[in-house]
Amino acid sequence: MTFTVYLSGEIHSDWRDQIRRGAESAGLDVTFTAPVTDHPASDAAGDHLGETGTQFWRDHQSAKVNAIRTRTLIQQSDLVVVRFGDQYKQWNAAFDAGYCAALGKPYVTLHDANIVHALKEVDAEAQAWCTTTDQVVETLRYVLQAS
Amino acid sequence: MTFTVYLSGEIHSDWRDQIRRGAESAGLDVTFTAPVTDHPASDAAGDHLGETGTQFWRDHQSAKVNAIRTRTLIQQSDLVVVRFGDQYKQWNAAFDAGYCAALGKPYVTLHDANIVHALKEVDAEAQAWCTTTDQVVETLRYVLQAS
Amino acid sequence: MTFTVYLSGEIHSDWRDQIRRGAESAGLDVTFTAPVTDHPASDAAGDHLGETGTQFWRDHQSAKVNAIRTRTLIQQSDLVVVRFGDQYKQWNAAFDAGYCAALGKPYVTLHDANIVHALKEVDAEAQAWCTTTDQVVETLRYVLQAS
Amino acid sequence: MTFTVYLSGEIHSDWRDQIRRGAESAGLDVTFTAPVTDHPASDAAGDHLGETGTQFWRDHQSAKVNAIRTRTLIQQSDLVVVRFGDQYKQWNAAFDAGYCAALGKPYVTLHDANIVHALKEVDAEAQAWCTTTDQVVETLRYVLQAS
Amino acid sequence: MTFTVYLSGEIHSDWRDQIRRGAESAGLDVTFTAPVTDHPASDAAGDHLGETGTQFWRDHQSAKVNAIRTRTLIQQSDLVVVRFGDQYKQWNAAFDAGYCAALGKPYVTLHDANIVHALKEVDAEAQAWCTTTDQVVETLRYVLQAS
Amino acid sequence: MTFTVYLSGEIHSDWRDQIRRGAESAGLDVTFTAPVTDHPASDAAGDHLGETGTQFWRDHQSAKVNAIRTRTLIQQSDLVVVRFGDQYKQWNAAFDAGYCAALGKPYVTLHDANIVHALKEVDAEAQAWCTTTDQVVETLRYVLQAS
Amino acid sequence: MTFTVYLSGEIHSDWRDQIRRGAESAGLDVTFTAPVTDHPASDAAGDHLGETGTQFWRDHQSAKVNAIRTRTLIQQSDLVVVRFGDQYKQWNAAFDAGYCAALGKPYVTLHDANIVHALKEVDAEAQAWCTTTDQVVETLRYVLQAS
Amino acid sequence: MTFTVYLSGEIHSDWRDQIRRGAESAGLDVTFTAPVTDHPASDAAGDHLGETGTQFWRDHQSAKVNAIRTRTLIQQSDLVVVRFGDQYKQWNAAFDAGYCAALGKPYVTLHDANIVHALKEVDAEAQAWCTTTDQVVETLRYVLQAS
Repeated sequence: MTFTVYLSGEIHSDWRDQIRRGAESAGLDVTFTAPVTDHPASDAAGDHLGETGTQFWRDHQSAKVNAIRTRTLIQQSDLVVVRFGDQYKQWNAAFDAGYCAALGKPYVTLHDANIVHALKEVDAEAQAWCTTTDQVVETLRYVLQAS
Repeated sequence: MTFTVYLSGEIHSDWRDQIRRGAESAGLDVTFTAPVTDHPASDAAGDHLGETGTQFWRDHQSAKVNAIRTRTLIQQSDLVVVRFGDQYKQWNAAFDAGYCAALGKPYVTLHDANIVHALKEVDAEAQAWCTTTDQVVETLRYVLQAS
Repeated sequence: MTFTVYLSGEIHSDWRDQIRRGAESAGLDVTFTAPVTDHPASDAAGDHLGETGTQFWRDHQSAKVNAIRTRTLIQQSDLVVVRFGDQYKQWNAAFDAGYCAALGKPYVTLHDANIVHALKEVDAEAQAWCTTTDQVVETLRYVLQAS
Repeated sequence: MTFTVYLSGEIHSDWRDQIRRGAESAGLDVTFTAPVTDHPASDAAGDHLGETGTQFWRDHQSAKVNAIRTRTLIQQSDLVVVRFGDQYKQWNAAFDAGYCAALGKPYVTLHDANIVHALKEVDAEAQAWCTTTDQVVETLRYVLQAS
Repeated sequence: MTFTVYLSGEIHSDWRDQIRRGAESAGLDVTFTAPVTDHPASDAAGDHLGETGTQFWRDHQSAKVNAIRTRTLIQQSDLVVVRFGDQYKQWNAAFDAGYCAALGKPYVTLHDANIVHALKEVDAEAQAWCTTTDQVVETLRYVLQAS
Repeated sequence: MTFTVYLSGEIHSDWRDQIRRGAESAGLDVTFTAPVTDHPASDAAGDHLGETGTQFWRDHQSAKVNAIRTRTLIQQSDLVVVRFGDQYKQWNAAFDAGYCAALGKPYVTLHDANIVHALKEVDAEAQAWCTTTDQVVETLRYVLQAS
Repeated sequence: MTFTVYLSGEIHSDWRDQIRRGAESAGLDVTFTAPVTDHPASDAAGDHLGETGTQFWRDHQSAKVNAIRTRTLIQQSDLVVVRFGDQYKQWNAAFDAGYCAALGKPYVTLHDANIVHALKEVDAEAQAWCTTTDQVVETLRYVLQAS
Repeated sequence: MTFTVYLSGEIHSDWRDQIRRGAESAGLDVTFTAPVTDHPASDAAGDHLGETGTQFWRDHQSAKVNAIRTRTLIQQSDLVVVRFGDQYKQWNAAFDAGYCAALGKPYVTLHDANIVHALKEVDAEAQAWCTTTDQVVETLRYVLQAS
């Protein structure tokens, strides 16, 4: 059994690499995908299309270019991991979770216990809540190895 | 032309009433719906189903009861207004926006200019970004009155 | 806010009437629907179409006639209550729950604590698990009255 | 012609192996998938995510992890075989059948004649009712070999 | 409970009136809809749009105009009755049945026993096979009156 | 039988009024809807949301506000009439036709014979091609009156 | 460009082989699929499941087994060719055409000119009407070779 | 990461080749697809099916054959580029854009600044507006290379 897993959310820590390494160590046949995690590149994703005049429209233009990547990868995935870090609002992570919920695409969340209450709607639709990347890997291992 | 508008997000200011009053003043034929905005009642939505043992599962139980209301109302609406206030994470608002995006349900956002960058993915899928409730009402007025 | 609630499952106790009375007492604007609960009539639903020769095909013929009613009512409902009683296998109740899950139709379960383990897959997709009809009524009251 | 067949239901007999061996003997190009059939492992599927406090929430947590696997495999399959054994309630098997029915995913049932009446709704939506694993294999052979 | 029933197929006998009268006698709250049953009018449905040059394109033009009516009414119905008479090929009736099957719209067939074999694929997806209009009415009565 | 008909396309001639008057004269039970046909108002639909800096983003902002109205009305309609006039590119009309085609929403076109070749893809998915508003009205009359 | 083409309908002439040979001669990269074309085998498709008592239910049982094959292959195809021969009612061919129409699956018809009128609804939703297998092959050649 | 990109619209300039060459130079793993771009061949796509008598029906016949190719390729693509040139109406390009919008299929537009106003509805649903083929290639490069 193989799986494609999209890693959504926080881009300022190495949680994606931890999961990739853990899955590799466990010998899992998983393909990981992700949004553009280079922050300046992501913010400038639409700059080659021309000046927009205001910050709002520059963000708008870049966000729509990024969505070409993210929407496609989410739809092609079997599972989405949605990570909420300690900093930043990360509304895009919650947005992706809502997007998955409406599509019926299963997702698990990855966040600390201290934000459980604020994330209760997001967690309510998730298949699992993990606090560590090891728990994400173990979830993948169980699903794929069936034991 | 009539419209049903679901008002998602912040529950600690009177933005919903402002929009309701504005629409009434403009003579618009709009039905407004909303999640449960009584915060303690919302947190306790599942308490009548029994003790859960932990905070996470209490939240989980309540969030799933609340979703009976919110998912149904979002699906029945013609437009969703998603409000992000100055305080709190409001991941549930971003979650609702993502849910709408995947359903193809049109939504507009309502938030201050200082959080434009953090909300760029949410705004990119929105039909409009408003900073005041008057702008929301004017948007509704234009859509319904066609002038 | 109004709701249409389909009451699926057990037909040998008066749980449907209890919920109807409770909702009426609470002044809720709910329309309740249900499968044919007259057991002999349900078993004979297709008999007017002719002899089938075997028990399997008699059941088959009747079940398909009953499905005209049940599938339509489930799709028209806003919420489904799925009741598992103490007796009988009630696979049709579990079938309805799975049907709802695939449609994204919210449902709550109603059953005693002693069968929690056997129903874990059914409960996992439910919005709530109730053990009493009062809990079902209170869930409806909260969803509709928002307080 | 190749087929992917998901084997849903009873986990206390060797019916899955009988079908696998039969398909192999017949030289059929079929990939078989299944839920986790190791009962203790399945019950503990979510235990690595932490203590839940009650049996209901432990079951809930595990069932949601298992659903990552089962929902994906059902959706990827061309046909589902739903097995009802002599023991246990097996509501999850009926749940899977209802899930398939709503998706328009074809399924066949496998059960003894003595439970035909209780399963009439489940059988009514099935493409075939088999009483032996040989009949399942023969059905697959016919569908794939077209003779 | 109310129902909208679309009456598809044969236009050279009075089976639609028989069903309408039967439903009225039984006091059923059913709205019946139908394609254009005036044969010359139906064949000329597109003639006001101009000459087409050939019989094929005249038929094509009329059939597409008729489809505005038939597709809409089928989608708005709760149940479709598909009638195959003794004469004519009535491929449009079988076409409507296939259309319903793909939509998940329930339908019953109405035809004599002597064409059972030729209609086996059409009957296999039907909820019931009736040989008389009384059986259709009785099916409706049971579904609506639940007894 | 009643119908809701959305009138898409050209806003510089009185074709919508001609159809409305024709339907009224024929006594048809049709509700007509339309985009905002006040051209300056339509171009300024988003101006109340703030300055955008460039023409492209002003158009973008207004077009997204207009889409709240047009997408909703198209989805609520039973039939769409798509009008291509003698002047202007009217890509939005062709866009609406493609949108309808993908939704399976029936539409008819209304345009002169001299642009038949350029519109062949649009006409190929239409239920009818009309050259006069009288033909549109006659099409509606036939569909609704069935004679 | 590759294509999968399902060949539906008549099983008493060699039209499928003519199309296969023509496509091979033209060097087209097409995979052809088909229902079971061995008539006695098709009629007996469900006989291994047991006696049914009547002809209707024997046909029913076999038709449902055949549908496992036909529904899957239609859904996996890029194009369906629906053949109506000179003999037999071939309602299953018209049924498949209606099924395709509702799914938005493109199909072409293959039949003589003398049955054009009776097939006008079926042809109205088709992408093309062919009278010879050479025309079917040429249609495939054009679509795949783009010249 | 690989992508399939459908190139819709103008067929009288070499923009498709420019994009193909640019993607190749950038080492992108992209498969490009397109409608039939040989204009006379496209107009004659249905001629092998027989004479139609009028220009309208010849165009109709050809357009439906072309749609077998274009609808399939659009649905199989990850992204669509819609090109509007300086000449011709190119309603089919706008039609494809509307088709994509309704499917939720992401597309970018490619056109000069002087037609921005006329294309505002088409651009409003696009992920990006490009004025040069280099911008299209850069958009693809960013999406695929994530930097």
